[in-house]
Amino acid sequence: MPITVQRVKTFIKQTFLAAGASAEHSSLAADALISADLRGVDSHGVARLAGYIRLWEQQRLNMQPNIRIVHESPSTAVIDGDLGAGLVVAPKAMQIAIDKAQKAGTGWVAVKNSNHFGIAGYHAMQALQYDMIGISMTNASALVSPTFSKDRMLGTNPIAVAIPANEEPPFVMDMATTPAANGKLEVCERQNKDIPQGWAQTKEGKPTVNNKALKKGGAMLPLGSDREHGSHKGYCLGAWVDIFSAVLSGANYGPWVPPFVSFLSPPPNPVGEGIGHFVGAMRIDAFRPALEFKAHMDNWIQTFRKAQSVEGQPEVQIPGDQERLIEQERLKNGIIIHSSVMNELNQLADKLKIDRLK
Amino acid sequence: MPITVQRVKTFIKQTFLAAGASAEHSSLAADALISADLRGVDSHGVARLAGYIRLWEQQRLNMQPNIRIVHESPSTAVIDGDLGAGLVVAPKAMQIAIDKAQKAGTGWVAVKNSNHFGIAGYHAMQALQYDMIGISMTNASALVSPTFSKDRMLGTNPIAVAIPANEEPPFVMDMATTPAANGKLEVCERQNKDIPQGWAQTKEGKPTVNNKALKKGGAMLPLGSDREHGSHKGYCLGAWVDIFSAVLSGANYGPWVPPFVSFLSPPPNPVGEGIGHFVGAMRIDAFRPALEFKAHMDNWIQTFRKAQSVEGQPEVQIPGDQERLIEQERLKNGIIIHSSVMNELNQLADKLKIDRLK
Repeated sequence: MPITVQRVKTFIKQTFLAAGASAEHSSLAADALISADLRGVDSHGVARLAGYIRLWEQQRLNMQPNIRIVHESPSTAVIDGDLGAGLVVAPKAMQIAIDKAQKAGTGWVAVKNSNHFGIAGYHAMQALQYDMIGISMTNASALVSPTFSKDRMLGTNPIAVAIPANEEPPFVMDMATTPAANGKLEVCERQNKDIPQGWAQTKEGKPTVNNKALKKGGAMLPLGSDREHGSHKGYCLGAWVDIFSAVLSGANYGPWVPPFVSFLSPPPNPVGEGIGHFVGAMRIDAFRPALEFKAHMDNWIQTFRKAQSVEGQPEVQIPGDQERLIEQERLKNGIIIHSSVMNELNQLADKLKIDRLK
Repeated sequence: MPITVQRVKTFIKQTFLAAGASAEHSSLAADALISADLRGVDSHGVARLAGYIRLWEQQRLNMQPNIRIVHESPSTAVIDGDLGAGLVVAPKAMQIAIDKAQKAGTGWVAVKNSNHFGIAGYHAMQALQYDMIGISMTNASALVSPTFSKDRMLGTNPIAVAIPANEEPPFVMDMATTPAANGKLEVCERQNKDIPQGWAQTKEGKPTVNNKALKKGGAMLPLGSDREHGSHKGYCLGAWVDIFSAVLSGANYGPWVPPFVSFLSPPPNPVGEGIGHFVGAMRIDAFRPALEFKAHMDNWIQTFRKAQSVEGQPEVQIPGDQERLIEQERLKNGIIIHSSVMNELNQLADKLKIDRLK
């Protein structure tokens, strides 16, 4: 049975409140986390709520962070997330970027000492309501090998860019810099299906279709899959995200990024603080009148939507189309939560003495 | 026989001078164009010089452009390249971005009404000498199909990011948003070899290994090659570059981008002016002290260089390594110019009444 979006959001908020977060922070976290469920990225939504709480119990996540600017210029800032949830820290960073953009045309905020921030697209989309372009990136614990390597050196390091249009819905790209996100391997595992060649490699760096490749010490491959198909470009993209998120901010980078899961310890000898994000906001009318820009975005979107499909293939999509359709459906019909996730959430509710989700 | 870099550079400068460009613009163009030959991107260097002149003869390239800011904010500008060579317009745009970054922390310049700008990496690297990160992108005439489509809608739209280090050489990524750059298909054609699956498709959108696929009306595929391996992500990246380069600036986008080659006419009913670029500069110390950042970049680079290789594979490279090795070799030993290119350049010299290259 599906549960209404509002009910799940309230549950997330109550969970954060019960763990000691302020009302404001609990609301920010609930909005950010539910956006993943709404947009169909089930692996990054309420299914992760218990994980945030476990990190808090281990004192690896601070529910009362003092989030503050530690360095700034007219168009930039670095903020220290004080080990808060990325779900709270990233929206604060994005608000600073938007405020800077109001005055300077653009605003760019690098974040250190944070935790997992949910889906990248949500944070980028915060800029849209101000007629701004939003950008967000985050690093993540190492699962991906650079081209030619067998070592895990980079996270799936996503990039999101949200661009407003006028009559058309916005252009929203939100992509891991790997052929498939980690959650897709888990889906294959649950369905007892092989993964496609080009997604992962064994511990020795050999090609594999084993859906347990990561659990056996293997690694994910960068977007492009192999050298001949441009995996060095996927490696570049992941490296770019890592450097902007963590070397600019003073967070941990590469193999030092702490894991999200509480059963894995953070790597020893950290090179920075927590995980890192990088967000930006660009005021459209710092480039050209907003209505003029948005009219051309409408034309861009309509032109690409009309591109002819290959026979037997679906219609051409605009980045964000698929997620928006799922969002419309779920706002109307509610969210279906997997029974194992539901059990975990109800145990969490009992422990925190809040109402069970169902 | 190789020719010294200085001799080729002088030849490029004299060519632009003979076509009526100012001494300053001729120098800018020569520096930008030779950088491609130096870095081993032979398809984008002096081999294209005659192409620029043919566009000028057709009045599709202005040798005396009045490059000017048409819109700005403290951290942004849009410039009108007045149909100048991108080799001249983009360095001017990058200088404006750097000047803005000096004051505002970052500077971002969208460019309209330009032409082909050579290699993206060169422009990004201009920021390095100021302890800044440089970014550059450009759109290009449509050769790439979005996922599911058989129409050519996007160029190979490259992204370059240059990041300074301290003792290590800089991190310089410069990548087309396709599995392989267009020039690689031409190399396969000259060598009479099949292209790998996943680089291109036929006019009908079927997979192909035919090295003449593009000439037969086919299209290049986005990075990721097919949906299962993330081609929708390559499509997102190419679209992002197109929108930042052309919709922000007022240039032509998507299928309206004018071709570089003079034997193809620009598409009718343009939606903007010329082709578009987008460049940015970010002052490192707008985020954290430059020396601190660069020490961590050294550590990042050294850590990734030490990542273990898969047995039988080359060592892990840092973006920019390969191009820098070629540059060192060519600065020492000179550049070998293909005989067909040499013939074309000598005919050009005769026509413009300048000294033959050899």
